[in-house]
Amino acid sequence: MREATLRDVARLAGVSPRTVSNVVNGYAPVTEATRAKVEKAIAELDYRPNVVARNLARGRSGQIAVVVPYLDTPYFSELLQGIIPRARAGGYNVLVDQTDGDPEHERELIRRRARGFAFDGLIFSPLGLAQRDLADADPTLPLVVLGERSAAGSFDHVGIDDVAASREATAHLISLGRRRIAAIGDQPYPTGEAAQLRTTGFRQAHLDAALEVDEALVIGTPRFNRADGAGAMRRLLNRSDPPDAVFCYSDLVALGALHAALERGVRVPEDVALIGYDDIEEGRYSNPTISTVSPDKEAIAATAVERLLMRIGLGRGTEGVAGVEVRAAHRLVARESTLGRAAR
Amino acid sequence: MREATLRDVARLAGVSPRTVSNVVNGYAPVTEATRAKVEKAIAELDYRPNVVARNLARGRSGQIAVVVPYLDTPYFSELLQGIIPRARAGGYNVLVDQTDGDPEHERELIRRRARGFAFDGLIFSPLGLAQRDLADADPTLPLVVLGERSAAGSFDHVGIDDVAASREATAHLISLGRRRIAAIGDQPYPTGEAAQLRTTGFRQAHLDAALEVDEALVIGTPRFNRADGAGAMRRLLNRSDPPDAVFCYSDLVALGALHAALERGVRVPEDVALIGYDDIEEGRYSNPTISTVSPDKEAIAATAVERLLMRIGLGRGTEGVAGVEVRAAHRLVARESTLGRAAR
Repeated sequence: MREATLRDVARLAGVSPRTVSNVVNGYAPVTEATRAKVEKAIAELDYRPNVVARNLARGRSGQIAVVVPYLDTPYFSELLQGIIPRARAGGYNVLVDQTDGDPEHERELIRRRARGFAFDGLIFSPLGLAQRDLADADPTLPLVVLGERSAAGSFDHVGIDDVAASREATAHLISLGRRRIAAIGDQPYPTGEAAQLRTTGFRQAHLDAALEVDEALVIGTPRFNRADGAGAMRRLLNRSDPPDAVFCYSDLVALGALHAALERGVRVPEDVALIGYDDIEEGRYSNPTISTVSPDKEAIAATAVERLLMRIGLGRGTEGVAGVEVRAAHRLVARESTLGRAAR
Repeated sequence: MREATLRDVARLAGVSPRTVSNVVNGYAPVTEATRAKVEKAIAELDYRPNVVARNLARGRSGQIAVVVPYLDTPYFSELLQGIIPRARAGGYNVLVDQTDGDPEHERELIRRRARGFAFDGLIFSPLGLAQRDLADADPTLPLVVLGERSAAGSFDHVGIDDVAASREATAHLISLGRRRIAAIGDQPYPTGEAAQLRTTGFRQAHLDAALEVDEALVIGTPRFNRADGAGAMRRLLNRSDPPDAVFCYSDLVALGALHAALERGVRVPEDVALIGYDDIEEGRYSNPTISTVSPDKEAIAATAVERLLMRIGLGRGTEGVAGVEVRAAHRLVARESTLGRAAR
């Protein structure tokens, strides 16, 4: 069966091809009666406009890209779940890619728009690249960066206040009477900026309470995943003076740490209290459930899409548009891993 | 800064624009020396070929779509993690969409290639649509369906043997001496086909062991998620004759059921043994860890991409290409939720 063309639709509807094009592409207004005739003919013929050609004529791909380090990280899949319907509601489809935190892959994305990868704008969660490297970004590329701003630039940032949130999480542990508090997830300068902000908040909470940070209890991990959390917790529990609480830089790290503790017969929170970060669904079902910092993911997704579509609409990338930093709300959610079964 | 054009590259390299086009698009062979000159000029000018125009000339978008019911389901994000790099290695970018299992959204995708959504082929995990509805699929659309085949069609299926796997999971519970075995996740005909196959396997294992299925213990759930697993488990535990084992149709369902059991002080596996399905990472870290059916996800991702790119390469969609059913391997992984702490 031959595919229906715009001309076929025009013939069946008894209008000119230009009128059909006006209905399909919205180039010029048409009367309601004409629109109804054309839409009926489109449905009858199952006409499919040539999207690629139409976007080419507009100089647009009709797509945005969302690039995260790892797609199997629940925080990112929960965020994508919020981004995709909003982008589609705005008329954009979503290309998804993961970088594995590879700096070269990340650099390529923002510099030349990797060959064969057509998108009108990018929502980007960098990991291997320091934010100062984003200054190299193609100035014609509409760009929204997920995470708190650490360097100047004319693109937008959307994230929560990592220092304040980490300070609150640590203060919660201190308020429970814990004094030997470990941190799992630190990462070295210049990359790992989210981790460094969390370490800063951890230190501030100690300062607030006139407590010293035991540097031996600040454990670095290459990733924020379950395996790294479990490995770091085993090292901490091997010490002659193990911690009585741990601030974990993600819920996955906390879930890995919990696994390692229970494996050794260490009780959570009686022997060691744990708090995570991200408020992923998994932490609401684990045993015990995980106390956490809950970022307003809906607001992050909505704001990131809104800022990006605004930039695309202006057709100017980052040139001449001031970059803004949007701070979404966060709240502390105390559950069983710090409060015990009493939390039920 | 003005963007470099193909003409700029030609001028700098001292060749004709047609020669540059031949290098970039591979339309005609060029000598190694010429290629080197052109590539040097491309790098120097940071020339970015117009991907949209190039694909249009080829009648291709250079993209495949992967559509799943829910992106925040770990089974699908783990699968995507395998699909994306393989598609990119094959020269294709990946559009991701979720349908929320909405039959209308699913129908639109396979029939007209939803407006504004350009892709050369589709890897599709239907949920709201019965497989027999896929017969309506656009015959020009290269299509690979995830899951076991239940209806004829000229597209490919990639999945594991759901009946055999479910029979093995249930037999494992029987082998441990459990006799009152519940099932959580059944879904009504005609959609919910994966669920129906699992129920079939559950029944076969009972038949094999000359046991009767207590129909009151076969619990339907709208989704395969944690909340539905927890809700179904609470109903089972409210009975005067609760089960001593539960076959859950996904690991998320099992993790929700585990949460509900522990909340009530019911011991797993001593009072009730649990087995899940999918082998997601979360089940390897939960407390207790979750016994499960482990599908070979790497093989599923690799085969789905390979079959799809083959169909796209033929340029024929499903017309005249016989549909094949590829059965990936699976294995039973027994952990603490059936074997107890002894499994450590």
